[in-house]
Amino acid sequence: KRLATLALHPSVWLEFTPLAAVTRSVNLGQGFPDWEPPSFVLQAAARAAAQPAATVQQYARSRGHPQLAQVICEVYGKRRFGGRVLNPQENVLVTNGASGAIYLALVSLVDEGDEVLLVEPAFDIYFGAVKMAGGTAKHVPLRPRYPQAQSAADLELDDAALEAAITPRTRVLLLNTPHNPTGKVMTRDELEAVAAVIRRYPQVTVVSDEVYEHLVYDGARHVSMASLPGMFERCLSIFSAGKTFSVTGWKIGWVIGGAALVQRLHNAQQFVVFSVCTPMQAAVAECLEHAERTDYYAQLARRMQHRRDQLLKALRAAHLQPLVPQGGYFVVADGAALPACRHEFPEGMQQLLQEQQRSGNAHGLEVDERTRHRRDYNLARWMSLQRRVTPIPLSVFYGPATADANDTWLRFAFCKRDEMLEAAAERLRQQE
Amino acid sequence: KRLATLALHPSVWLEFTPLAAVTRSVNLGQGFPDWEPPSFVLQAAARAAAQPAATVQQYARSRGHPQLAQVICEVYGKRRFGGRVLNPQENVLVTNGASGAIYLALVSLVDEGDEVLLVEPAFDIYFGAVKMAGGTAKHVPLRPRYPQAQSAADLELDDAALEAAITPRTRVLLLNTPHNPTGKVMTRDELEAVAAVIRRYPQVTVVSDEVYEHLVYDGARHVSMASLPGMFERCLSIFSAGKTFSVTGWKIGWVIGGAALVQRLHNAQQFVVFSVCTPMQAAVAECLEHAERTDYYAQLARRMQHRRDQLLKALRAAHLQPLVPQGGYFVVADGAALPACRHEFPEGMQQLLQEQQRSGNAHGLEVDERTRHRRDYNLARWMSLQRRVTPIPLSVFYGPATADANDTWLRFAFCKRDEMLEAAAERLRQQE
Ligand SMILES: CSCCC(=O)C(=O)O
Ligand SMILES: CSCCC(=O)C(=O)O
Repeated sequence: KRLATLALHPSVWLEFTPLAAVTRSVNLGQGFPDWEPPSFVLQAAARAAAQPAATVQQYARSRGHPQLAQVICEVYGKRRFGGRVLNPQENVLVTNGASGAIYLALVSLVDEGDEVLLVEPAFDIYFGAVKMAGGTAKHVPLRPRYPQAQSAADLELDDAALEAAITPRTRVLLLNTPHNPTGKVMTRDELEAVAAVIRRYPQVTVVSDEVYEHLVYDGARHVSMASLPGMFERCLSIFSAGKTFSVTGWKIGWVIGGAALVQRLHNAQQFVVFSVCTPMQAAVAECLEHAERTDYYAQLARRMQHRRDQLLKALRAAHLQPLVPQGGYFVVADGAALPACRHEFPEGMQQLLQEQQRSGNAHGLEVDERTRHRRDYNLARWMSLQRRVTPIPLSVFYGPATADANDTWLRFAFCKRDEMLEAAAERLRQQE
Repeated sequence: KRLATLALHPSVWLEFTPLAAVTRSVNLGQGFPDWEPPSFVLQAAARAAAQPAATVQQYARSRGHPQLAQVICEVYGKRRFGGRVLNPQENVLVTNGASGAIYLALVSLVDEGDEVLLVEPAFDIYFGAVKMAGGTAKHVPLRPRYPQAQSAADLELDDAALEAAITPRTRVLLLNTPHNPTGKVMTRDELEAVAAVIRRYPQVTVVSDEVYEHLVYDGARHVSMASLPGMFERCLSIFSAGKTFSVTGWKIGWVIGGAALVQRLHNAQQFVVFSVCTPMQAAVAECLEHAERTDYYAQLARRMQHRRDQLLKALRAAHLQPLVPQGGYFVVADGAALPACRHEFPEGMQQLLQEQQRSGNAHGLEVDERTRHRRDYNLARWMSLQRRVTPIPLSVFYGPATADANDTWLRFAFCKRDEMLEAAAERLRQQE
């Protein structure tokens, strides 16, 4: 009864996105940009959407729109995998966003009882996808190198712990760099150390979530595991138009990998969604071409670094202890010092739930009952109600064994307009 | 090793869509329209795609864009379920096309070893989705009421056979009306007879694929199982913007059903794709509103009926025995009388595969090796190579036990422009 179990628990997104709306909070929860997407992006979409041709408005091939698959091969062939020639018939699959790719990878590689290694903390959607594939998640912690670490650069994956966690049933190591939620960007050396372990275990495929590939700060560089010697055929690297072009609603992602691995995902894709939205694929092809010709990526990273710095300042002023991210959309911060970091479900939440119920729950706000006594959840609820700034409780990024021990941290998104980050700063400064 | 098995067999779509392209055939295979979508549809898409607002370019709720969910409730609340008030927070889920909905339904309702009843012949994608959910497909035949039946209206589902096929492990009856591939439209009486059986087995949910709801001919009327007394809470009814607005590439579908059932699919959706393309959802909301104000559906059905008649004439002239469809995109026809209906894999196919391989298989043409000796496959291949008209072999719509016994029939799509249907007619008339 895999799904019957899952069905009992609404995800964190079903609570905190509506909660931000209902409380009119600055929503620093879910990771989506709130600015206008670049005009070249909107124009590409409008052009594709208005094209009468059957090649744009009708089913794409399951593997992906030929033009997009071609552009992906050109762009990533050059940049990422040491000049390796990528074949659009073999090495690419366009998916329904990166989440669609992660699900397909797990469901294709994992059988009932197989094990998947997750780097903890891990994007919460991974847990559900592992469960749906019938697998068991095992966690390898990302740990501070020393107490009071200030930067995500000071987090490390313990390679000995990684190797100790591998069993004959291990099928997948799910990597994520730049990392959600901490913003850790793995260096080439760190990836090489992981690769050295993985090379000893041929039963393990690396599924590498690289959706924040272009969002790196302070001179950090994004490196793909697949670009290391001998790793390409053992990796599935996952990318996202949503994060790259600030259009998370388009739901276009892609997987690059060895032909045999990609083929498995392709077979599964036929029955899960059959194919992916054609006009949006055509638009993304154009966006990738445009970005290659301009300094769009550098500009985006520069702006995001500025936003990160704005948010870091605000959090420090509010006595939250942030860990400085090197990449991605998010900052994690410890709320332990805040007086509101208690165990109680806020009074105001109770009222809100009753009102919601009376009004037919138009916002769809749902609370996972198991979280009523978690400190980070209640701190995040309190901040939404009392400060009107909505973060995400960090314990959702931990497995059941460690969630309770990691219940004073919050995650804040900085993929928001300057004025929103300023408003958040102001609200966070308020005294009780 | 569920997926490892599936992975060995490319689907029929990976052979015949590329085969039509390579042979420059009139493609009467895959069911997508080849005409320009209506201008109100293209305009709605272009408008949505160009909107800068975060509510259109960023993640939709997993359940669906609020505006679309609302419109669906208004439209279907009026038309289908006896005036029942549908709640957009409870009774609707927007999915990645109807195939996405079918997959979610099966994966949510079926556990390893559970049984799913399919009405045979059945859309081939159902088989793969049942397998991926870990279920076992059982087939209930749609049989001619008498020998030499001429119309899909003369097919019937044997209710005694249906009841006999139900066991304590039966979880789903997958219905499909109007039916792919035969074009059978179930009458209210026929549905009532099925409902009478299902009401006795509370463990069975009806998943009802109604993507051709508006495409009915000769005065036939589409009826939803969910509109019969007591059935709403036991049904998931599935619809498709692709088929309704002639834009199969958009991949927007929706499920309507009882709150508890829809909730299960919603939970699964979070981990399978998280959410569905937002701008396309906004566009579909507008399309549905437009269609309500105009006679768009009636016009579409009228045109499709004309196309059907054109194709029927062409098939009869070519000594193929068609069954007259009452709805949908397709005609099935018996090719047994054709001299080319033999067992051999055509010489020309062998050459084509070799050329494809030399050229890096740019078209992605793949042949399921198990089908090399099937008569209907080889007839469809021969027609593509020698007549340059591509149908789909019908045995793909049968389970492994009955596929070999149903290997002289073909399926032809008539969702094609008049000039294409005329070209097909001319080519089919050629003598050997
Ligand atoms: C499933 S929410 C998607 C947004 C995201 O990536 C995040 O907020 O972590
Ligand atoms: C998976 S192909 C989709 C088109 C269709 O519905 C069909 O051709 O049967």
